[in-house]
Amino acid sequence: MRIALLGGTGDIGKGLALRWGHDTDHDIILGSRDPEKARAAADEYQETLADHGVETKITGFVNEMAADRADVAVLAVPAYHLTDTVEAVADKLDDTVLVTPAVGMKRDDDGFHYNPPPAGSVSALAADAAPEGVPVVGAFHNLAAAGLTDLDTEFDWDTPVFGDDDSAKATVMELAAEIEGLRPLDVGGLANASEVEALTPLLINLASENEGLHDLGVKFW
Amino acid sequence: MRIALLGGTGDIGKGLALRWGHDTDHDIILGSRDPEKARAAADEYQETLADHGVETKITGFVNEMAADRADVAVLAVPAYHLTDTVEAVADKLDDTVLVTPAVGMKRDDDGFHYNPPPAGSVSALAADAAPEGVPVVGAFHNLAAAGLTDLDTEFDWDTPVFGDDDSAKATVMELAAEIEGLRPLDVGGLANASEVEALTPLLINLASENEGLHDLGVKFW
Ligand SMILES: C[C@@H](OP(=O)(O)OC[C@@H](O)[C@@H](O)[C@@H](O)Cn1c2nc(=O)[nH]c(=O)c-2cc2ccc(O)cc21)C(=O)N[C@@H](CCC(=O)N[C@@H](CCC(=O)O)C(=O)O)C(=O)O
Ligand SMILES: C[C@@H](OP(=O)(O)OC[C@@H](O)[C@@H](O)[C@@H](O)Cn1c2nc(=O)[nH]c(=O)c-2cc2ccc(O)cc21)C(=O)N[C@@H](CCC(=O)N[C@@H](CCC(=O)O)C(=O)O)C(=O)O
Ligand SMILES: NC(=O)c1ccc[n+]([C@@H]2O[C@H](COP(=O)([O-])OP(=O)(O)OC[C@H]3O[C@@H](n4cnc5c(N)ncnc54)[C@H](OP(=O)(O)O)[C@@H]3O)[C@@H](O)[C@H]2O)c1
Ligand SMILES: NC(=O)c1ccc[n+]([C@@H]2O[C@H](COP(=O)([O-])OP(=O)(O)OC[C@H]3O[C@@H](n4cnc5c(N)ncnc54)[C@H](OP(=O)(O)O)[C@@H]3O)[C@@H](O)[C@H]2O)c1
Repeated sequence: MRIALLGGTGDIGKGLALRWGHDTDHDIILGSRDPEKARAAADEYQETLADHGVETKITGFVNEMAADRADVAVLAVPAYHLTDTVEAVADKLDDTVLVTPAVGMKRDDDGFHYNPPPAGSVSALAADAAPEGVPVVGAFHNLAAAGLTDLDTEFDWDTPVFGDDDSAKATVMELAAEIEGLRPLDVGGLANASEVEALTPLLINLASENEGLHDLGVKFW
Repeated sequence: MRIALLGGTGDIGKGLALRWGHDTDHDIILGSRDPEKARAAADEYQETLADHGVETKITGFVNEMAADRADVAVLAVPAYHLTDTVEAVADKLDDTVLVTPAVGMKRDDDGFHYNPPPAGSVSALAADAAPEGVPVVGAFHNLAAAGLTDLDTEFDWDTPVFGDDDSAKATVMELAAEIEGLRPLDVGGLANASEVEALTPLLINLASENEGLHDLGVKFW
């Protein structure tokens, strides 16, 4: 499977690239607005994997070319730039599954708060921006990038996965399950996105309010 | 400490009464709109505890009298009836901490969805209804009553706790910690309530969409 991490130069893109690179044989493709930045990150992640005994090829391209090569494209970009990113790669998404880990949040003195767009959720925004027939799946919202990026960290986390296209959702759940320590859980359709997205500011508030809790994920049992 | 479970004849009230009855020496007082129903439930819970080797007295009163006796009063009533319940006991709440576990939800074909009142959260609604000077603390939202009511069930759950009055919040966190298997986590002030409340419909959707998951709680790590 060819997995593109659009905005893969960032925290969650790096985390997912390293974990899939380490735990699977999928082709990891980084995307960026700047191809040079993508190539540099690809080299850096490749080196990190080599340091952990995994020899694998990671490539880097401008987002459009990364998406063009992808079976699955993760929108590892800030929520407020998600629509621009989808529009930039829109005509490269035939037979591609779009994955959104994005959460819209705002911050004030009390802490972080869920801040969905008018569409109701960032996932709904992604679905609106995506071309007809391109399935959108939500996943990887409720886990700290730092837990993924540090390959020496072990975690036991669940990630709720949702989407209206069952086969696309199954594909993404399989990819998530291949990351050691990560358990995907079906949470239905895109209509259930906002509750998943709203869990992320809760995780950040919990980390900031409790000594000894940082870079959290969640377990449902 | 005297703990009143207003609406303690219901699922979460029963669960909290049994767990505090089993794991602590606090005085457990059930409240109901109907004193007879409260007394009957008190006898039932007392018997259940005796069956589990714990001899303890549980009393039952109309909600007003239960609140009058309480140091801490839990609003174990449906979210849509929370304001009526607070108003009914309002003049009995001197030196009493009000605790809300209540979540406003709606259900459609896709699943359960968070459905906060105009006040922004059910906790904000409780704070509005509470008399001046009566602190409101949110806790016990994200755990299944069935896990509490079955004393043979062991669980390892976290409960986020929030409130604007630090000492009242500390009191409730201590009470929560005394329930075996339950870890209270500070999540700041009432302004952070909605994200905690929104986690509950997510738990229900996860249980309904995944074989083998039911009566869930959550762990943050
Ligand atoms: C301070 C340090 O980390 P931090 O500020 O504690 O991070 C705070 C949060 O961003 C971090 O905890 C996120 O994981 C919080 N977080 C999310 N944060 C989000 O912004 N969005 C999310 O969707 C999100 C989800 C999430 C889920 C679970 C969870 O537990 C946490 C989550 C940090 O950001 N450091 C930077 C360095 C600080 C800095 O100024 N860096 C420079 C350059 C450094 C570089 O880019 O290499 C810069 O950013 O310009 C870094 O290490 O990347
Ligand atoms: C069917 C059975 O349980 P159930 O329908 O699977 O329960 C579905 C949900 O209500 C149950 O899972 C709740 O715990 C869901 N739930 C919440 N449900 C809510 O309605 N509100 C919540 O805030 C809530 C929070 C919550 C948090 C975590 C979690 O994991 C679940 C949570 C049930 O409700 N059975 C009744 C019997 C069914 C029945 O008809 N009973 C009669 C009489 C039975 C009696 O009262 O003794 C009646 O209710 O009139 C019972 O055992 O009490
Ligand atoms: N951080 C976490 O712990 C975490 C956890 C779960 C989910 N998430 C979600 O994952 C997404 C990415 O989070 P992150 O922390 O990885 O973000 P980030 O590091 O701040 O940014 C990710 C990448 O987005 C691209 N980007 C930045 N501004 C952009 C713009 N104006 N237009 C288009 N692309 C832009 C950049 O890539 P280029 O400059 O190379 O184009 C950047 O490297 C967010 O939606 C977040 O909600 C984050
Ligand atoms: N069930 C769960 O798993 C769970 C978990 C966490 C939080 N919660 C929250 O806890 C609260 C109670 O949930 P529950 O499942 O225990 O509810 P419940 O069993 O349906 O009802 C609890 C009690 O509320 C009282 N009540 C019912 N209708 C009322 C009305 N119109 N006015 C005043 N009181 C009324 C009844 O007591 P009397 O008839 O004796 O007065 C009833 O026994 C809810 O806000 C829920 O969101 C539930």
